[in-house]
Amino acid sequence: MADPLNAFVPDSNVFIKGAPTGPLAGLTFAAKDIYDVAGFVTGGGNPDWARSHEPATTHAPVVQALLEAGATLIGKTITDELTRGLLGINAHYGTPVNPRAPDRVPGGSSSGSAAAVAGGLTDFALGSDTGGSVRIPASFCGLYGLRPTHGRIPLEGILKQAPSFDTIGWLADDAEIMGRVGTVLLGPNVPDMPLQRLVIAADAFEMVSDAVTAALAPAIDRVKALAEDSDTLRLCPTSLRDWSQARLTEQNWEANHSFAEWIDRTNPRLAYDCAQRFAAVTEVDTQTIEPVRRAHRDRMAELLTPGSFVLLPTAPGPAPLKGLRRSEMSEMKEHLALLCGIAGGAGLPEISLPLGEMDGCPLGLSLIGPAGADEALLGFARMLKA
Amino acid sequence: MADPLNAFVPDSNVFIKGAPTGPLAGLTFAAKDIYDVAGFVTGGGNPDWARSHEPATTHAPVVQALLEAGATLIGKTITDELTRGLLGINAHYGTPVNPRAPDRVPGGSSSGSAAAVAGGLTDFALGSDTGGSVRIPASFCGLYGLRPTHGRIPLEGILKQAPSFDTIGWLADDAEIMGRVGTVLLGPNVPDMPLQRLVIAADAFEMVSDAVTAALAPAIDRVKALAEDSDTLRLCPTSLRDWSQARLTEQNWEANHSFAEWIDRTNPRLAYDCAQRFAAVTEVDTQTIEPVRRAHRDRMAELLTPGSFVLLPTAPGPAPLKGLRRSEMSEMKEHLALLCGIAGGAGLPEISLPLGEMDGCPLGLSLIGPAGADEALLGFARMLKA
Repeated sequence: MADPLNAFVPDSNVFIKGAPTGPLAGLTFAAKDIYDVAGFVTGGGNPDWARSHEPATTHAPVVQALLEAGATLIGKTITDELTRGLLGINAHYGTPVNPRAPDRVPGGSSSGSAAAVAGGLTDFALGSDTGGSVRIPASFCGLYGLRPTHGRIPLEGILKQAPSFDTIGWLADDAEIMGRVGTVLLGPNVPDMPLQRLVIAADAFEMVSDAVTAALAPAIDRVKALAEDSDTLRLCPTSLRDWSQARLTEQNWEANHSFAEWIDRTNPRLAYDCAQRFAAVTEVDTQTIEPVRRAHRDRMAELLTPGSFVLLPTAPGPAPLKGLRRSEMSEMKEHLALLCGIAGGAGLPEISLPLGEMDGCPLGLSLIGPAGADEALLGFARMLKA
Repeated sequence: MADPLNAFVPDSNVFIKGAPTGPLAGLTFAAKDIYDVAGFVTGGGNPDWARSHEPATTHAPVVQALLEAGATLIGKTITDELTRGLLGINAHYGTPVNPRAPDRVPGGSSSGSAAAVAGGLTDFALGSDTGGSVRIPASFCGLYGLRPTHGRIPLEGILKQAPSFDTIGWLADDAEIMGRVGTVLLGPNVPDMPLQRLVIAADAFEMVSDAVTAALAPAIDRVKALAEDSDTLRLCPTSLRDWSQARLTEQNWEANHSFAEWIDRTNPRLAYDCAQRFAAVTEVDTQTIEPVRRAHRDRMAELLTPGSFVLLPTAPGPAPLKGLRRSEMSEMKEHLALLCGIAGGAGLPEISLPLGEMDGCPLGLSLIGPAGADEALLGFARMLKA
């Protein structure tokens, strides 16, 4: 098929008709190329990975569930290499187009999924989110994107990066569709729920410029208007950097473990930034890391009492321009990891809402919910839209 | 042209007729794809390097000199990526065939040059040697290969890796041709010289198995028979590993400097082992490194009195089999670096002589000469053959 947005994996003509009836009947979806689809190689965004693996023999359970619920799979989408990227750049297959900001990157790693949805090619798309890979492309492309509670949806049939952080997520242009997918992948009940308490994350907003906060202000007011109560406070008693560093150390260590045998066997070609992340990892000092990780989880659990959400910017700003040097993107990458690590490091659900705009580009606003409150986040997003 | 040995850079039809007369008239040569040839991109063994550089506008001076001396250039040969490899494996263009041991790697980084010469496709070939890249493919493919004294032949018009160690070298199947090329690139006089003293490097031979030493024994006897005097002693008062580590630290640091701007700008695709070398480098602690480097140079200068050579195995053994895992090659790579670093780290000339055989595969024996004794090494190789 023609692919002007470069959203889809080249040379794979995946098309699987969904069941004639069901909650998703009539909808189409695309799946990031880390989901097994029977008969196709799960390519993972790297040609040497694709070349060294056999086609999948069965569908990933979530793909199967969506098909049975009536959605039609129309393609597999480009991912950042081995899901290790946040900007949506793929040195092998090219960067998918950001339809809402064509001179900018789409965000990643669920880059092709976001491009396909934002470009109107499909109703929703499966992504995955380890350190921001659904939320960031949602923010950059002006979409809804959910990272569910860690462990809520089993990771079967997908290429794993760091299983303690990997989650199955999805993106759509419409809060209603987000919720309908939730009824299939989470459970039948996605209720309209009142928000008792909104915690505005002061230290997360400190990571972004005043211009970003100003651009998000109208959206923040809309969220606040639906909350019974709100409070502005710092999430982390020390620095968000501490949480981020501990989380990244553990994630990188797990990612090395996931790919070590393959790298040893095949000496694959990787874009330098991807290779560098593998090469830079040293053994995790659990004595140092674990207390920080525990404090992070405990603090977020303490803040997120039932019926409350934390509000924060999804990303430090709109999508960066295409074609920047590595050194020009490093600070942006660091801040992306830091903001997305707040929910990611604590295993919490987060939804990015396409409610902001800056310099004519989309800008996401995020809500983090208590563990298991995935349906509440989806229901709230729907209410907010209405 | 058909390229059954995969020795040549794909899609480049380089053919430049040499001058009708001259010391090399009637000979053909090939040049590693790090030498500028006017009208062609100098590809350096990496497609992203090739894509991000313009064609050369003039020939490298050594290419020009060889053409003027009558040799005809028949092609550009595959190199290990950015000259950073010792085994002759290129993940992008494929591994050139080792014509003398087809189930084994050819050695690198002057892999295609060695394959082309050993396969009889050309009379001699230009390579380059930073940490063994001429000597190792010479040893693995059963050829003569000279690493000249550092600085003897200017590095103009070539892709540089680590200029404090980079040298321009060449390979041939015939000692006579080696010498004729020397008369063009070094100076007119390549004399038959008597060898006053042979120093057999005990600690270098400790790095190889008894089987390797036994396989080299007849060749060692031939060399000894031409020396007035010989002595067996340890080169390094501490451990050859100390010299090797200091040399590699400095080489890697320089290589990072050479490619840093390009990596930052293009985020290139590199085979993992190549990327890892860039990623692993940290700042050089000159306080620790410099005394070791100085001791190395001083000790070698002390041993290499005029008229003397040091004798050592070129490599720890014959070429390894193709298709090994990275972990299965790591010890071999370490020992290759260690042996080749003895001359390389001290800026000294070394010639690998194709005088050994083991398991039906070629095995090189090396002579290191005093600084500037390049012609003496070439002349001695010719005498040895006669």
